[in-house]
Amino acid sequence: MTERVDLAEKFAGFSDHWRPRIAAQLNGQDVRIVKVQGVFPWHSHAEGQEMFLVWKGRFYVEFRDRIVHLDPGQFIVVPSGVEHRTGAEEEAEVIIFEPSEVVNTGDAPVSDYTAPGGVMA
Amino acid sequence: MTERVDLAEKFAGFSDHWRPRIAAQLNGQDVRIVKVQGVFPWHSHAEGQEMFLVWKGRFYVEFRDRIVHLDPGQFIVVPSGVEHRTGAEEEAEVIIFEPSEVVNTGDAPVSDYTAPGGVMA
Repeated sequence: MTERVDLAEKFAGFSDHWRPRIAAQLNGQDVRIVKVQGVFPWHSHAEGQEMFLVWKGRFYVEFRDRIVHLDPGQFIVVPSGVEHRTGAEEEAEVIIFEPSEVVNTGDAPVSDYTAPGGVMA
Repeated sequence: MTERVDLAEKFAGFSDHWRPRIAAQLNGQDVRIVKVQGVFPWHSHAEGQEMFLVWKGRFYVEFRDRIVHLDPGQFIVVPSGVEHRTGAEEEAEVIIFEPSEVVNTGDAPVSDYTAPGGVMA
């Protein structure tokens, strides 16, 4: 994969919420892009750390004891095994960097929020 | 590391060229930020793939047979072992995702371009 990828173009290619697409894969990791709105279920990931970088809009990552609000160009790394949920009052666009085997809902029960894996942007 | 990180703030914290800083580390990977201007030496990395995402300015990745120009929000993944060099006519700011053990000049001889590893943003 040595082609140029344009993130804005990739984000423009879908409109559903909480359905990450893979923008790139490297070194066992995925770079995923996702549109979010509302509140995602509480969960954690045993497989590794997860980085959320905001591309557009306002997004938050909530832990059991606090909420971290993120604007475009801001990111946070969620440690493995730490419970969190994400959300956005209005639609936001987020870039996620995490191991390719990570399922978006982690250890939470499978639900409508559980996205199919392996979907390319 | 569950603190919010602001990329613009981190980029504002240094001014030298070709000296990547670590903005985040996760799953054996670094998220590095770097300011570039001019042309970097030809090299390749045996350790893994390398992703360049442009944050500001215009940047290019040159392969032996072609040049890929990148604007902000555009990225490319360079495969392991593939010779490349990077450059920018005017100063550009770039985000790099790659394994933490990658040295910026790869298999090229150590030179003034070879950056010390492990420097945090």
